[in-house]
Amino acid sequence: MVDSGGKVYIVGAGLGDVSFLTVRAQELLSQAEVLVYDALVDDRLLQLVPADCLKLDVGKRGGKPSTSQAEIDRLLVEQCTLGKQVVRLKSGDPFIFGRTTSEIQALIAAGCQFEVVPGISSALAAPLLAGIPLTDPVLSRGFAVITAHELDPLDWEALARMDTLVILMGGRNLAEIVDRLHQKGRSLRTPIALIQWAGSPQQQIWVGELGNIVDRTAGVSLSPVVIVIGEVVRLRSYLQTSL
Amino acid sequence: MVDSGGKVYIVGAGLGDVSFLTVRAQELLSQAEVLVYDALVDDRLLQLVPADCLKLDVGKRGGKPSTSQAEIDRLLVEQCTLGKQVVRLKSGDPFIFGRTTSEIQALIAAGCQFEVVPGISSALAAPLLAGIPLTDPVLSRGFAVITAHELDPLDWEALARMDTLVILMGGRNLAEIVDRLHQKGRSLRTPIALIQWAGSPQQQIWVGELGNIVDRTAGVSLSPVVIVIGEVVRLRSYLQTSL
Repeated sequence: MVDSGGKVYIVGAGLGDVSFLTVRAQELLSQAEVLVYDALVDDRLLQLVPADCLKLDVGKRGGKPSTSQAEIDRLLVEQCTLGKQVVRLKSGDPFIFGRTTSEIQALIAAGCQFEVVPGISSALAAPLLAGIPLTDPVLSRGFAVITAHELDPLDWEALARMDTLVILMGGRNLAEIVDRLHQKGRSLRTPIALIQWAGSPQQQIWVGELGNIVDRTAGVSLSPVVIVIGEVVRLRSYLQTSL
Repeated sequence: MVDSGGKVYIVGAGLGDVSFLTVRAQELLSQAEVLVYDALVDDRLLQLVPADCLKLDVGKRGGKPSTSQAEIDRLLVEQCTLGKQVVRLKSGDPFIFGRTTSEIQALIAAGCQFEVVPGISSALAAPLLAGIPLTDPVLSRGFAVITAHELDPLDWEALARMDTLVILMGGRNLAEIVDRLHQKGRSLRTPIALIQWAGSPQQQIWVGELGNIVDRTAGVSLSPVVIVIGEVVRLRSYLQTSL
Protein backbone atom coordinates (compact mmCIF):
# COMPACT_ATOMS: atom_id res chain seq x y z
CA MET A 1 0.00 0.00 0.00
CA VAL A 2 0.99 3.65 -0.40
CA ASP A 3 2.35 5.21 2.80
CA SER A 4 -0.15 7.86 3.88
CA GLY A 5 2.32 9.55 6.26
CA GLY A 6 -0.05 8.72 9.10
CA LYS A 7 1.11 6.98 12.26
CA VAL A 8 -0.59 5.67 15.39
CA TYR A 9 1.19 6.08 18.74
CA ILE A 10 -0.20 3.74 21.41
CA VAL A 11 0.80 5.67 24.50
CA GLY A 12 0.75 4.86 28.21
CA ALA A 13 -0.90 7.72 30.12
CA GLY A 14 0.48 6.73 33.51
CA LEU A 15 -1.61 7.58 36.57
CA GLY A 16 -3.55 10.55 35.21
CA ASP A 17 -1.48 13.45 36.50
CA VAL A 18 0.76 15.16 33.90
CA SER A 19 3.74 14.72 36.28
CA PHE A 20 3.68 10.97 35.72
CA LEU A 21 3.56 11.11 31.92
CA THR A 22 6.80 10.33 30.13
CA VAL A 23 8.57 13.13 28.29
CA ARG A 24 7.86 11.22 25.07
CA ALA A 25 4.14 10.94 25.80
CA GLN A 26 3.90 14.66 26.55
CA GLU A 27 5.68 15.48 23.28
CA LEU A 28 3.41 13.17 21.25
CA LEU A 29 0.26 14.63 22.85
CA SER A 30 1.43 18.18 22.05
CA GLN A 31 1.67 17.22 18.35
CA ALA A 32 -1.40 14.98 18.04
CA GLU A 33 -3.86 15.56 15.20
CA VAL A 34 -6.23 12.90 16.51
CA LEU A 35 -6.58 11.70 20.11
CA VAL A 36 -8.41 8.43 20.85
CA TYR A 37 -8.99 7.89 24.57
CA ASP A 38 -11.20 6.02 26.98
CA ALA A 39 -12.94 6.49 30.30
CA LEU A 40 -10.00 5.76 32.58
CA VAL A 41 -7.87 8.55 31.11
CA ASP A 42 -7.75 11.68 33.25
CA ASP A 43 -9.29 14.90 31.89
CA ARG A 44 -6.10 16.81 32.74
CA LEU A 45 -4.26 14.92 30.00
CA LEU A 46 -6.82 15.93 27.39
CA GLN A 47 -5.71 19.56 27.77
CA LEU A 48 -2.24 18.74 26.40
CA VAL A 49 -3.26 18.29 22.76
CA PRO A 50 -3.43 21.23 20.29
CA ALA A 51 -6.73 23.14 20.18
CA ASP A 52 -7.61 21.79 16.73
CA CYS A 53 -6.90 18.13 17.63
CA LEU A 54 -9.83 15.81 16.95
CA LYS A 55 -10.70 14.16 20.29
CA LEU A 56 -12.49 10.83 20.05
CA ASP A 57 -13.87 9.43 23.30
CA VAL A 58 -14.28 5.67 22.91
CA GLY A 59 -15.01 4.99 26.60
CA LYS A 60 -18.18 4.40 28.55
CA ARG A 61 -19.65 7.67 29.82
CA GLY A 62 -22.94 8.58 31.45
CA GLY A 63 -24.52 5.19 30.97
CA LYS A 64 -23.86 5.05 27.22
CA PRO A 65 -22.18 1.83 26.13
CA SER A 66 -18.48 2.01 25.27
CA THR A 67 -17.31 1.69 21.69
CA SER A 68 -16.62 -1.92 20.69
CA GLN A 69 -13.02 -3.01 20.26
CA ALA A 70 -13.64 -3.72 16.57
CA GLU A 71 -14.89 -0.16 16.11
CA ILE A 72 -11.83 1.27 17.92
CA ASP A 73 -9.56 -0.82 15.69
CA ARG A 74 -11.40 0.48 12.63
CA LEU A 75 -11.15 4.11 13.81
CA LEU A 76 -7.38 3.87 14.34
CA VAL A 77 -6.82 2.38 10.89
CA GLU A 78 -9.13 4.97 9.29
CA GLN A 79 -7.37 7.97 10.86
CA CYS A 80 -3.93 6.57 10.08
CA THR A 81 -4.92 5.96 6.46
CA LEU A 82 -6.06 9.60 6.27
CA GLY A 83 -2.43 10.51 7.05
CA LYS A 84 -3.02 11.69 10.61
CA GLN A 85 -0.67 11.63 13.60
CA VAL A 86 -2.89 9.66 15.99
CA VAL A 87 -2.34 9.22 19.73
CA ARG A 88 -4.20 6.25 21.22
CA LEU A 89 -3.96 7.05 24.94
CA LYS A 90 -4.33 4.21 27.45
CA SER A 91 -4.26 4.54 31.22
CA GLY A 92 -1.15 3.11 32.87
CA ASP A 93 1.07 1.09 30.52
CA PRO A 94 -0.32 -0.20 27.18
CA PHE A 95 1.08 -3.71 27.65
CA ILE A 96 -0.10 -4.28 31.25
CA PHE A 97 -3.70 -5.48 30.95
CA GLY A 98 -4.20 -2.90 28.20
CA ARG A 99 -5.89 -5.14 25.60
CA THR A 100 -3.61 -3.58 23.00
CA THR A 101 -3.08 -6.72 20.92
CA SER A 102 -6.22 -6.31 18.85
CA GLU A 103 -5.35 -2.72 17.92
CA ILE A 104 -1.81 -3.62 16.90
CA GLN A 105 -2.96 -6.56 14.80
CA ALA A 106 -5.49 -4.33 13.01
CA LEU A 107 -2.78 -1.72 12.32
CA ILE A 108 -0.35 -4.33 11.01
CA ALA A 109 -3.04 -5.90 8.79
CA ALA A 110 -3.76 -2.47 7.27
CA GLY A 111 -0.07 -1.65 6.79
CA CYS A 112 -0.27 1.30 9.21
CA GLN A 113 2.83 2.72 10.88
CA PHE A 114 2.68 2.53 14.67
CA GLU A 115 4.74 2.77 17.85
CA VAL A 116 4.03 1.66 21.41
CA VAL A 117 5.23 4.02 24.18
CA PRO A 118 5.53 2.63 27.74
CA GLY A 119 3.84 4.36 30.66
CA ILE A 120 3.99 4.29 34.45
CA SER A 121 1.79 1.34 35.53
CA SER A 122 -0.41 1.74 38.60
CA ALA A 123 0.59 -1.84 39.50
CA LEU A 124 4.02 -0.49 40.48
CA ALA A 125 3.42 3.22 41.11
CA ALA A 126 0.33 3.01 43.33
CA PRO A 127 2.23 0.98 45.98
CA LEU A 128 5.20 3.39 45.72
CA LEU A 129 3.00 6.46 46.22
CA ALA A 130 1.40 4.71 49.20
CA GLY A 131 4.87 4.18 50.70
CA ILE A 132 5.09 0.45 49.96
CA PRO A 133 8.15 -0.91 48.11
CA LEU A 134 7.21 -4.07 46.19
CA THR A 135 10.67 -5.50 46.75
CA ASP A 136 12.93 -5.71 49.77
CA PRO A 137 16.18 -7.63 50.25
CA VAL A 138 14.62 -9.61 53.11
CA LEU A 139 10.83 -9.35 52.92
CA SER A 140 10.21 -9.57 49.18
CA ARG A 141 12.51 -11.12 46.60
CA GLY A 142 9.87 -10.73 43.94
CA PHE A 143 6.25 -9.90 43.26
CA ALA A 144 3.40 -11.04 41.04
CA VAL A 145 0.82 -8.86 39.29
CA ILE A 146 -2.65 -10.11 38.32
CA THR A 147 -6.11 -8.80 37.50
CA ALA A 148 -8.90 -10.33 39.49
CA HIS A 149 -12.18 -9.63 37.78
CA GLU A 150 -12.20 -13.38 36.97
CA LEU A 151 -10.80 -15.61 39.73
CA ASP A 152 -11.19 -19.18 38.48
CA PRO A 153 -8.51 -19.20 35.75
CA LEU A 154 -5.80 -18.09 38.21
CA ASP A 155 -3.37 -20.47 39.98
CA TRP A 156 -4.08 -19.44 43.58
CA GLU A 157 -1.66 -21.97 45.03
CA ALA A 158 1.27 -20.38 43.18
CA LEU A 159 0.00 -16.86 43.93
CA ALA A 160 -0.32 -17.63 47.66
CA ARG A 161 3.38 -18.51 47.69
CA MET A 162 4.63 -15.26 46.15
CA ASP A 163 6.27 -12.91 48.67
CA THR A 164 4.21 -10.00 47.36
CA LEU A 165 1.04 -9.99 45.30
CA VAL A 166 -0.37 -6.96 43.46
CA ILE A 167 -3.96 -7.23 42.30
CA LEU A 168 -5.65 -4.86 39.85
CA MET A 169 -9.44 -4.74 39.44
CA GLY A 170 -9.95 -6.90 42.51
CA GLY A 171 -12.06 -4.57 44.66
CA ARG A 172 -15.39 -6.27 44.07
CA ASN A 173 -13.92 -9.73 44.67
CA LEU A 174 -11.96 -8.83 47.81
CA ALA A 175 -13.71 -11.32 50.14
CA GLU A 176 -13.28 -14.14 47.64
CA ILE A 177 -9.60 -13.26 47.04
CA VAL A 178 -8.95 -13.40 50.79
CA ASP A 179 -10.72 -16.78 51.02
CA ARG A 180 -8.76 -18.32 48.18
CA LEU A 181 -5.36 -17.16 49.46
CA HIS A 182 -6.22 -18.39 52.95
CA GLN A 183 -7.38 -21.77 51.60
CA LYS A 184 -4.03 -22.11 49.83
CA GLY A 185 -2.11 -21.52 53.05
CA ARG A 186 -1.60 -17.78 53.30
CA SER A 187 -1.94 -16.61 56.92
CA LEU A 188 -4.89 -14.40 57.86
CA ARG A 189 -2.29 -12.20 59.58
CA THR A 190 -0.69 -11.31 56.21
CA PRO A 191 -0.68 -7.52 55.77
CA ILE A 192 -2.78 -6.02 52.97
CA ALA A 193 -3.21 -2.50 51.61
CA LEU A 194 -5.86 -1.10 49.26
CA ILE A 195 -4.89 2.03 47.34
CA GLN A 196 -7.33 4.24 45.47
CA TRP A 197 -6.60 7.24 43.19
CA ALA A 198 -2.85 6.93 43.78
CA GLY A 199 -0.90 10.12 43.21
CA SER A 200 -3.97 12.36 43.14
CA PRO A 201 -5.32 14.63 45.89
CA GLN A 202 -8.11 12.06 46.37
CA GLN A 203 -5.62 9.27 47.19
CA GLN A 204 -7.02 6.92 49.87
CA ILE A 205 -5.40 3.93 51.53
CA TRP A 206 -6.86 1.19 53.68
CA VAL A 207 -4.44 -1.08 55.56
CA GLY A 208 -5.14 -4.26 57.51
CA GLU A 209 -4.59 -8.00 57.43
CA LEU A 210 -6.23 -10.66 55.27
CA GLY A 211 -8.35 -11.53 58.31
CA ASN A 212 -9.85 -8.09 58.87
CA ILE A 213 -9.64 -6.10 55.61
CA VAL A 214 -13.13 -7.08 54.43
CA ASP A 215 -14.68 -5.71 57.63
CA ARG A 216 -12.46 -2.63 57.51
CA THR A 217 -13.67 -1.70 54.03
CA ALA A 218 -17.31 -2.68 54.43
CA GLY A 219 -19.56 -0.28 52.54
CA VAL A 220 -16.66 1.38 50.67
CA SER A 221 -16.75 1.51 46.86
CA LEU A 222 -13.49 -0.23 45.90
CA SER A 223 -13.37 0.40 42.16
CA PRO A 224 -10.81 1.17 40.92
CA VAL A 225 -8.33 -0.02 43.53
CA VAL A 226 -4.82 -1.49 43.63
CA ILE A 227 -4.40 -4.26 46.24
CA VAL A 228 -0.98 -5.14 47.72
CA ILE A 229 -0.60 -8.29 49.85
CA GLY A 230 2.58 -9.24 51.71
CA GLU A 231 4.98 -8.33 54.50
CA VAL A 232 6.24 -5.27 52.56
CA VAL A 233 3.00 -3.51 53.50
CA ARG A 234 4.44 -3.22 57.03
CA LEU A 235 7.32 -1.10 55.68
CA ARG A 236 4.80 1.64 55.03
CA SER A 237 4.95 2.83 58.64
CA TYR A 238 8.74 3.21 58.35
CA LEU A 239 8.89 4.57 54.84
CA GLN A 240 6.25 7.14 54.04
CA THR A 241 7.20 8.34 50.57
CA SER A 242 7.33 11.98 51.58
CA LEU A 243 7.85 13.79 54.88
CA MET B 1 15.21 20.16 64.39
CA VAL B 2 15.16 23.40 62.39
CA ASP B 3 13.97 22.95 58.80
CA SER B 4 16.94 23.69 56.54
CA GLY B 5 14.76 24.11 53.44
CA GLY B 6 16.62 21.19 51.91
CA LYS B 7 14.83 18.23 50.34
CA VAL B 8 15.90 14.94 48.80
CA TYR B 9 14.01 13.63 45.76
CA ILE B 10 14.58 9.93 45.18
CA VAL B 11 13.81 9.75 41.49
CA GLY B 12 13.35 6.88 39.04
CA ALA B 13 15.47 7.50 35.94
CA GLY B 14 13.62 5.02 33.74
CA LEU B 15 15.59 3.31 30.98
CA GLY B 16 18.29 5.93 30.40
CA ASP B 17 16.87 7.83 27.47
CA VAL B 18 15.34 11.24 28.30
CA SER B 19 12.17 10.17 26.42
CA PHE B 20 11.37 7.66 29.16
CA LEU B 21 11.84 10.04 32.09
CA THR B 22 8.66 11.30 33.70
CA VAL B 23 7.78 14.97 33.32
CA ARG B 24 8.25 15.30 37.09
CA ALA B 25 11.74 13.76 36.99
CA GLN B 26 12.79 16.07 34.16
CA GLU B 27 11.54 19.09 36.12
CA LEU B 28 13.36 18.03 39.30
CA LEU B 29 16.62 17.42 37.42
CA SER B 30 16.40 20.88 35.80
CA GLN B 31 16.25 22.44 39.29
CA ALA B 32 18.71 20.20 41.14
CA GLU B 33 21.45 21.77 43.24
CA VAL B 34 23.00 18.39 44.01
CA LEU B 35 22.76 15.21 41.92
CA VAL B 36 23.70 11.84 43.45
CA TYR B 37 23.81 9.05 40.88
CA ASP B 38 25.30 5.62 40.30
CA ALA B 39 26.81 3.57 37.53
CA LEU B 40 23.59 2.32 35.93
CA VAL B 41 22.33 5.85 35.24
CA ASP B 42 22.78 6.96 31.62
CA ASP B 43 25.17 9.85 30.88
CA ARG B 44 22.48 11.54 28.78
CA LEU B 45 20.47 12.21 31.94
CA LEU B 46 23.41 13.95 33.61
CA GLN B 47 23.17 16.73 31.02
CA LEU B 48 19.74 17.78 32.30
CA VAL B 49 20.90 19.41 35.55
CA PRO B 50 21.98 23.10 35.75
CA ALA B 51 25.65 23.81 34.95
CA ASP B 52 26.44 24.68 38.58
CA CYS B 53 24.82 21.53 40.02
CA LEU B 54 27.15 19.47 42.20
CA LYS B 55 27.32 15.99 40.64
CA LEU B 56 28.27 13.18 42.98
CA ASP B 57 29.00 9.82 41.37
CA VAL B 58 28.53 7.09 43.99
CA GLY B 59 28.77 4.17 41.55
CA LYS B 60 31.50 1.78 40.60
CA ARG B 61 33.63 3.15 37.76
CA GLY B 62 36.86 2.09 36.15
CA GLY B 63 37.61 -0.57 38.72
CA LYS B 64 37.27 1.74 41.72
CA PRO B 65 34.95 0.35 44.38
CA SER B 66 31.48 1.89 44.67
CA THR B 67 30.60 4.09 47.61
CA SER B 68 29.16 2.12 50.54
CA GLN B 69 25.45 2.41 51.23
CA ALA B 70 26.18 3.95 54.64
CA GLU B 71 28.28 6.64 52.94
CA ILE B 72 25.52 7.36 50.40
CA ASP B 73 22.99 7.66 53.24
CA ARG B 74 25.35 10.08 55.03
CA LEU B 75 25.88 12.17 51.87
CA LEU B 76 22.13 12.58 51.27
CA VAL B 77 21.52 13.67 54.87
CA GLU B 78 24.49 16.06 54.75
CA GLN B 79 23.39 17.81 51.56
CA CYS B 80 19.78 18.04 52.74
CA THR B 81 20.89 19.54 56.05
CA LEU B 82 22.89 22.13 54.09
CA GLY B 83 19.55 23.23 52.63
CA LYS B 84 20.09 21.81 49.15
CA GLN B 85 17.57 20.52 46.63
CA VAL B 86 19.04 17.05 46.11
CA VAL B 87 18.10 14.59 43.37
CA ARG B 88 19.05 10.98 44.12
CA LEU B 89 18.72 9.40 40.70
CA LYS B 90 18.17 5.62 40.46
CA SER B 91 17.88 3.60 37.28
CA GLY B 92 14.39 2.26 36.58
CA ASP B 93 11.96 2.68 39.48
CA PRO B 94 13.27 3.41 43.02
CA PHE B 95 11.03 0.80 44.66
CA ILE B 96 11.74 -2.09 42.27
CA PHE B 97 14.97 -3.69 43.51
CA GLY B 98 16.28 -0.17 44.18
CA ARG B 99 17.61 -0.70 47.73
CA THR B 100 15.98 2.59 48.65
CA THR B 101 14.89 1.60 52.16
CA SER B 102 18.19 2.40 53.80
CA GLU B 103 18.30 5.89 52.29
CA ILE B 104 14.73 6.70 53.36
CA GLN B 105 15.31 5.45 56.89
CA ALA B 106 18.44 7.63 57.18
CA LEU B 107 16.52 10.67 55.90
CA ILE B 108 13.63 10.08 58.32
CA ALA B 109 16.04 9.59 61.25
CA ALA B 110 17.68 12.93 60.42
CA GLY B 111 14.37 14.73 60.00
CA CYS B 112 15.05 15.44 56.34
CA GLN B 113 12.26 16.24 53.89
CA PHE B 114 12.04 13.78 51.04
CA GLU B 115 9.85 12.52 48.19
CA VAL B 116 9.98 9.35 46.09
CA VAL B 117 9.16 9.76 42.37
CA PRO B 118 8.23 6.63 40.37
CA GLY B 119 10.04 5.75 37.15
CA ILE B 120 9.59 3.43 34.18
CA SER B 121 10.92 0.03 35.30
CA SER B 122 12.89 -2.06 32.82
CA ALA B 123 10.99 -5.09 34.19
CA LEU B 124 7.90 -3.84 32.32
CA ALA B 125 9.32 -1.54 29.63
CA ALA B 126 12.07 -3.79 28.24
CA PRO B 127 9.54 -6.48 27.23
CA LEU B 128 7.27 -3.78 25.73
CA LEU B 129 10.09 -2.29 23.66
CA ALA B 130 10.96 -5.81 22.49
CA GLY B 131 7.35 -6.29 21.33
CA ILE B 132 6.32 -8.62 24.17
CA PRO B 133 3.18 -7.79 26.19
CA LEU B 134 3.50 -9.24 29.71
CA THR B 135 -0.23 -9.83 29.86
CA ASP B 136 -2.71 -11.27 27.41
CA PRO B 137 -6.36 -12.23 27.94
CA VAL B 138 -5.58 -15.85 26.99
CA LEU B 139 -1.83 -16.46 27.29
CA SER B 140 -0.96 -14.50 30.45
CA ARG B 141 -3.36 -13.58 33.22
CA GLY B 142 -0.49 -12.31 35.32
CA PHE B 143 3.27 -12.14 35.65
CA ALA B 144 5.94 -12.31 38.33
CA VAL B 145 9.11 -10.22 38.60
CA ILE B 146 12.23 -11.41 40.43
CA THR B 147 15.96 -10.75 40.55
CA ALA B 148 18.14 -13.80 40.15
CA HIS B 149 21.62 -13.01 41.34
CA GLU B 150 20.80 -15.38 44.25
CA LEU B 151 18.70 -18.39 43.33
CA ASP B 152 18.31 -20.45 46.51
CA PRO B 153 15.96 -18.16 48.44
CA LEU B 154 13.39 -18.15 45.60
CA ASP B 155 10.32 -20.44 45.45
CA TRP B 156 10.96 -22.04 42.04
CA GLU B 157 7.89 -24.25 42.23
CA ALA B 158 5.60 -21.22 42.48
CA LEU B 159 7.61 -19.31 39.86
CA ALA B 160 7.43 -22.24 37.40
CA ARG B 161 3.64 -22.04 37.61
CA MET B 162 3.34 -18.33 36.74
CA ASP B 163 2.08 -17.69 33.19
CA THR B 164 4.88 -15.17 32.62
CA LEU B 165 8.12 -14.66 34.52
CA VAL B 166 10.36 -11.59 34.26
CA ILE B 167 13.88 -11.96 35.64
CA LEU B 168 16.27 -9.08 36.27
CA MET B 169 19.99 -9.64 36.85
CA GLY B 170 19.72 -13.26 35.77
CA GLY B 171 22.14 -13.31 32.82
CA ARG B 172 24.99 -15.04 34.58
CA ASN B 173 22.70 -17.68 36.10
CA LEU B 174 20.77 -18.44 32.91
CA ALA B 175 21.66 -22.14 32.72
CA GLU B 176 20.79 -22.66 36.38
CA ILE B 177 17.49 -20.76 36.01
CA VAL B 178 16.52 -22.98 33.06
CA ASP B 179 17.39 -26.10 35.08
CA ARG B 180 15.37 -25.08 38.11
CA LEU B 181 12.27 -24.16 36.10
CA HIS B 182 12.50 -27.43 34.16
CA GLN B 183 12.93 -29.46 37.37
CA LYS B 184 9.75 -27.83 38.71
CA GLY B 185 7.76 -28.87 35.66
CA ARG B 186 8.16 -26.07 33.13
CA SER B 187 8.46 -27.44 29.60
CA LEU B 188 11.75 -27.06 27.75
CA ARG B 189 9.61 -25.81 24.84
CA THR B 190 8.57 -22.71 26.83
CA PRO B 191 9.50 -19.56 24.88
CA ILE B 192 12.12 -17.23 26.37
CA ALA B 193 13.49 -13.84 25.35
CA LEU B 194 16.58 -11.99 26.57
CA ILE B 195 16.55 -8.21 26.11
CA GLN B 196 19.61 -6.00 26.45
CA TRP B 197 19.80 -2.16 26.36
CA ALA B 198 16.04 -1.85 25.77
CA GLY B 199 14.96 1.38 24.12
CA SER B 200 18.48 2.37 23.10
CA PRO B 201 20.11 2.10 19.64
CA GLN B 202 22.16 -0.82 21.07
CA GLN B 203 19.02 -2.82 21.90
CA GLN B 204 19.56 -6.56 21.33
CA ILE B 205 17.15 -9.45 21.68
CA TRP B 206 17.73 -13.18 21.76
CA VAL B 207 14.68 -15.45 21.45
CA GLY B 208 14.45 -19.20 21.91
CA GLU B 209 13.03 -21.87 24.19
CA LEU B 210 14.16 -22.97 27.64
CA GLY B 211 15.75 -25.98 25.94
CA ASN B 212 17.98 -24.05 23.53
CA ILE B 213 18.54 -20.54 24.88
CA VAL B 214 21.78 -21.40 26.70
CA ASP B 215 23.31 -22.67 23.45
CA ARG B 216 21.93 -19.72 21.49
CA THR B 217 23.59 -17.21 23.79
CA ALA B 218 26.87 -19.07 24.36
CA GLY B 219 29.76 -16.62 24.62
CA VAL B 220 27.51 -13.54 24.85
CA SER B 221 27.94 -11.16 27.80
CA LEU B 222 24.45 -11.12 29.33
CA SER B 223 24.80 -8.36 31.88
CA PRO B 224 22.60 -6.40 32.19
CA VAL B 225 19.70 -8.28 30.66
CA VAL B 226 15.94 -8.62 31.16
CA ILE B 227 14.66 -12.19 30.75
CA VAL B 228 11.04 -12.95 29.84
CA ILE B 229 9.74 -16.51 30.03
CA GLY B 230 6.28 -17.62 28.87
CA GLU B 231 3.95 -18.04 25.93
CA VAL B 232 3.63 -14.25 25.48
CA VAL B 233 7.11 -14.26 23.94
CA ARG B 234 5.48 -15.85 20.86
CA LEU B 235 3.31 -12.73 20.40
CA ARG B 236 6.45 -10.86 19.46
CA SER B 237 6.29 -12.11 15.88
CA TYR B 238 2.73 -10.75 15.56
CA LEU B 239 3.19 -7.53 17.50
CA GLN B 240 6.42 -5.75 16.80
CA THR B 241 6.06 -2.49 18.72
CA SER B 242 6.77 -0.30 15.69
CA LEU B 243 6.44 -0.79 11.96
